[in-house]
Amino acid sequence: MADGKQSRPKARTVRGFRDRAAGELAAERAMLDTIRRTYESYGFDALETPFVEYTDALGKFLPDVDRPNAGVFSFRDEDEQWVSLRYDLTAPLARYVAENQQFLPRPFRRYQIGTVFRNDKPGPGRYREFIQCDADTVGTASPSADAEMVMMFADTLEAVGLKRGEYSIRINSRKLLDGVIESVGIALADGALRGTILRALDKRDRLGEAGVRLLLGKGRKDESGDFTDGANLQPSQIDELLEFSNPDAKLDGVKALGQKFSGEGRASSLWNEGVEEVARIADVVRACGYDDEDGRIVLDTSIIRGLEYYTGAVFEAQLTFPVQNEKGQTVVFGSVGGGGRYDDLVARFTGQRTPAVGFSIGVSRLLTALQMRKAAVAAVAPLVVVTVFDKNDASPAFAMVRELRGAGIRAEAYVGTGKMGDQFKYADKRGAALAIIEGPDERAKGEVTVKDLALGAELAKSVESRAAWVGNREAQVTIKRTDLVAEIRRMLAREH
Amino acid sequence: MADGKQSRPKARTVRGFRDRAAGELAAERAMLDTIRRTYESYGFDALETPFVEYTDALGKFLPDVDRPNAGVFSFRDEDEQWVSLRYDLTAPLARYVAENQQFLPRPFRRYQIGTVFRNDKPGPGRYREFIQCDADTVGTASPSADAEMVMMFADTLEAVGLKRGEYSIRINSRKLLDGVIESVGIALADGALRGTILRALDKRDRLGEAGVRLLLGKGRKDESGDFTDGANLQPSQIDELLEFSNPDAKLDGVKALGQKFSGEGRASSLWNEGVEEVARIADVVRACGYDDEDGRIVLDTSIIRGLEYYTGAVFEAQLTFPVQNEKGQTVVFGSVGGGGRYDDLVARFTGQRTPAVGFSIGVSRLLTALQMRKAAVAAVAPLVVVTVFDKNDASPAFAMVRELRGAGIRAEAYVGTGKMGDQFKYADKRGAALAIIEGPDERAKGEVTVKDLALGAELAKSVESRAAWVGNREAQVTIKRTDLVAEIRRMLAREH
Repeated sequence: MADGKQSRPKARTVRGFRDRAAGELAAERAMLDTIRRTYESYGFDALETPFVEYTDALGKFLPDVDRPNAGVFSFRDEDEQWVSLRYDLTAPLARYVAENQQFLPRPFRRYQIGTVFRNDKPGPGRYREFIQCDADTVGTASPSADAEMVMMFADTLEAVGLKRGEYSIRINSRKLLDGVIESVGIALADGALRGTILRALDKRDRLGEAGVRLLLGKGRKDESGDFTDGANLQPSQIDELLEFSNPDAKLDGVKALGQKFSGEGRASSLWNEGVEEVARIADVVRACGYDDEDGRIVLDTSIIRGLEYYTGAVFEAQLTFPVQNEKGQTVVFGSVGGGGRYDDLVARFTGQRTPAVGFSIGVSRLLTALQMRKAAVAAVAPLVVVTVFDKNDASPAFAMVRELRGAGIRAEAYVGTGKMGDQFKYADKRGAALAIIEGPDERAKGEVTVKDLALGAELAKSVESRAAWVGNREAQVTIKRTDLVAEIRRMLAREH
Repeated sequence: MADGKQSRPKARTVRGFRDRAAGELAAERAMLDTIRRTYESYGFDALETPFVEYTDALGKFLPDVDRPNAGVFSFRDEDEQWVSLRYDLTAPLARYVAENQQFLPRPFRRYQIGTVFRNDKPGPGRYREFIQCDADTVGTASPSADAEMVMMFADTLEAVGLKRGEYSIRINSRKLLDGVIESVGIALADGALRGTILRALDKRDRLGEAGVRLLLGKGRKDESGDFTDGANLQPSQIDELLEFSNPDAKLDGVKALGQKFSGEGRASSLWNEGVEEVARIADVVRACGYDDEDGRIVLDTSIIRGLEYYTGAVFEAQLTFPVQNEKGQTVVFGSVGGGGRYDDLVARFTGQRTPAVGFSIGVSRLLTALQMRKAAVAAVAPLVVVTVFDKNDASPAFAMVRELRGAGIRAEAYVGTGKMGDQFKYADKRGAALAIIEGPDERAKGEVTVKDLALGAELAKSVESRAAWVGNREAQVTIKRTDLVAEIRRMLAREH
């Protein structure tokens, strides 16, 4: 179909994209405003980078091929340069810092809330466009910056309505992971083997220790019969990796852990740095009182955070309350975001290492979690529809809605062309709380009739037909026109 | 450069795109929140459609060519269908209504605030990504819906801070325009000629009546010597078109205008419909008191709104206060948005005419206007930086910022690795209002020192070197640690 004018196009969203309506948006907006206020209260400044970046700036060219990675949406600009929709908010930040570093304070602290795009296969609940909420501190290697991040992460989750004990920020360090890999005698230079090990350890949640053991050893056949090659490590190597990778590590235990794994003359400098950094993060977290019995901030050496660009501390926010998974099993809700220290992203542009740390919240996951916890989720304000008796003169209705709006009440005059019956159906379909009628008789008496649509719908449950309640006297009252604002306010307050 | 790993990519935004920092974003957010509240108070519901649409759904295929219009950013999805970044918010709305019409109330009223993309040649102040703010009522042909739109447009401009007399919503009708074109004996079926006439009339602002007269006649040579072909109309036709196209038409005058141009047996049904519709819009506007001497809502038969999809009323919001243009001439600020009635967009999908009316505000134009009028534009909240004396123990600084934040004060502990001098420079570069120092002596005495950076910068103007003020005693005070919150609050209040 070359030309939309020749045949009618089909009205549909692009696969993997969706429209979002008022209810979801109101809840999301309230949550994002709270997150924004929290980040700003910590001194982070807003930044908005464009939705598109040159593909080379995103680091999304495939190696040795003049094509962008298939995972990003890309097109050529008019000068034939490849341009992509942003894949996350971190790569654009690195580009921004590299471009503006001489003008920026150091450390540079920004937050960004924005839509990112993934050209992945869509699935149920998996969209190709979603919102992330990032905060980053760029230009300092101080562990106090990492400590501040995890504390702000915890404060943010509480600000949006989660309670202590419902979440846990779990810290690990890429340096500890790499240190222990080195300590069991594996060269980090073997990137493929390191990748296989990290991916295996990352599956502990899903496969349990036994499954990870297979993936670190000879390999594993899954339920569908597909075989995944293993890392072919020795049993003693596997034992040590699994002993290290422990979801129940304690913040207090990092020094002891340090001693244990740095014993026997195997300590690498990477390992020692990791122990020192995590210990200093733990010191600040403890001094600020976040290492409490609610488990707000804990050490969890099983945290991997995929194969991303992290170079030091990594952290993940897990929600610990139980939910049913798609198989009907009870599991914890799980991750709503994470982050860590990445010291090499700006160097891609400048050649100079620039230490940085940040985290990202997955907005739709967190909103789902809040709705499950029935945390106070904002709703669209209740609506009053003023019906129009004489279609040739809507101005009395417009005057009424202006009065109501002046008092902070959401109100609209009916602007369609339907009769009164259609107008009530409209108000009902809108989910309006109240409808107002001012016919000629009422006007003559200085009165208006208010129909309580919510009460009407309630009453309709106990009567034969939906039509019956329309005339139901219980669901409507007649009030003085001069009392309009006060009466409407009273009726809305009663319902909400 | 095929591979970002081989050589370092250059850090730069894509041509025509830009980064936006905290000051602009704070002002914009406050303005958008106000617009959103106004639209919601009128009963419009939020809707967010995706950033991308199938190109055929946007109506952006070139005629008879299997390529999208060059004005939109387009790429192929994995199933080879063309996909484009949205060009405006109206075409996605039409797609949404066509897709969901059986579930939607009628009329359907939604607003959308979102970024749109134009693959145009960028220039100074012309970006390829910008924000629009739309409200639309779909599914009613009633002129009261048009009247509500222009009144809401006026209320929105006042809500964001413009005063009466600074703006004017100007109404015209595409039916009047087409009616008068017919009445001078030109067939509307000649789309090319109609286009030439509308484009000529649209240039009255810029070229004056004499320039338009040339474009309606033999053509016009501009200052650069380029010649634009004219519409080759007869002088009498040109006279009538120019008589109709009148920026000083009055709302009251629409009936008289109707009689004038429908005389001599030439009235077309289009013309009569246009007169009737504009008269009914004028009735409501007048009854609601918007036709005041401040010129809030007026009839302006010179308004064209380009060659867009309008089918009835069109309107434009003009800001009437004087500004200097790039040539140093004094001109009025001009348009910040507009809209009108479009009855055919949904029909592209469904085959059924769906009457609709809406308007769109250009966010960056309006923000610029507010800044020029020095309307109360929101700023980023003042920041307090707490310096860290002992880098191995940042926790006293973290405790202080938590106290300040608890009192609603924006505060951050320094998380870099610099010495005290670097920390003051940092605070200064951040534009912080105050910096707090708690050295060991101060801690022993239960005191902290507060440096007033704004006052310091003021004082620095009267001393020899920038360095001199750092030690300036006037710009700093020592307070009791226990009075921290009260004292900081007092100092911030003094400055802001």
